[in-house]
Amino acid sequence: MSAVDYREWLRVAVEEAEASLASGGIPIGAALIGAGGEVLGRGHNRRVQDDDPSVHGETAAFRNAGRQRSYSGTTMVTTLSPCWYCSGLIRQFGIGRVVIGEARNFHGGHDWLAEHGVDVVVLDDDACTRMMADFIDAHPRLWNEDIGEE
Amino acid sequence: MSAVDYREWLRVAVEEAEASLASGGIPIGAALIGAGGEVLGRGHNRRVQDDDPSVHGETAAFRNAGRQRSYSGTTMVTTLSPCWYCSGLIRQFGIGRVVIGEARNFHGGHDWLAEHGVDVVVLDDDACTRMMADFIDAHPRLWNEDIGEE
Repeated sequence: MSAVDYREWLRVAVEEAEASLASGGIPIGAALIGAGGEVLGRGHNRRVQDDDPSVHGETAAFRNAGRQRSYSGTTMVTTLSPCWYCSGLIRQFGIGRVVIGEARNFHGGHDWLAEHGVDVVVLDDDACTRMMADFIDAHPRLWNEDIGEE
Repeated sequence: MSAVDYREWLRVAVEEAEASLASGGIPIGAALIGAGGEVLGRGHNRRVQDDDPSVHGETAAFRNAGRQRSYSGTTMVTTLSPCWYCSGLIRQFGIGRVVIGEARNFHGGHDWLAEHGVDVVVLDDDACTRMMADFIDAHPRLWNEDIGEE
């Protein structure tokens, strides 16, 4: 895969994050990409929209991809460094690669994933960083709720 | 909390696992217990029932508890050692304690949780162990799918 592919995949995750923001939600989006580069599933955080604390961007993409027999050739692309919950998902199901828009606003479990053999790519994307920073500034309480900070 | 409380809480998780089994699903159940011992949410694996790979027993209980401001005084009780996905959930949201029916059929992330300050109780319950062993014997492919083993 090339950096161009990663940016194209990130575009899908960003579209999801923007859709979430437009519907009053937390702007984190993700997609599960198949071995051939196809989008298996895409989704975004739904804490606000569904009043559901269990749906993060990554778990939404994973769910929307449906049941798969193997995840070893797949990539999870996400606008923000995955929290422990989503990092655990990636590790448990053997998702081979994670492509991360940015890890400045939140540094989750991606170092741990790298230690356990996941290919980790951090794109350090300015637009992702700005979108999340603006959201956290405007809605600090909601953001803290989403990552379990009191 | 006493061992009696833990057994009572486990009973709720076992009821969920039994309900899942009765509806053709994977017999893993869980409940999120509040600081006062009340059941905040309960649920079971729904891979088969909903064709949804994202719903493990623990994530179902977490979802069904709804949005909470704090998880520090809560306990996740589950019939089986939590996989990395569910262990990540427990760590990210600061769930203070995990009570586990058994860890013989599957040893997930509970040692890691203990290292990170979660109070871990393994009850080594015979009935839980037997229920899961019987299921794995009868449905090895489904079980492997649920934990991302090929």
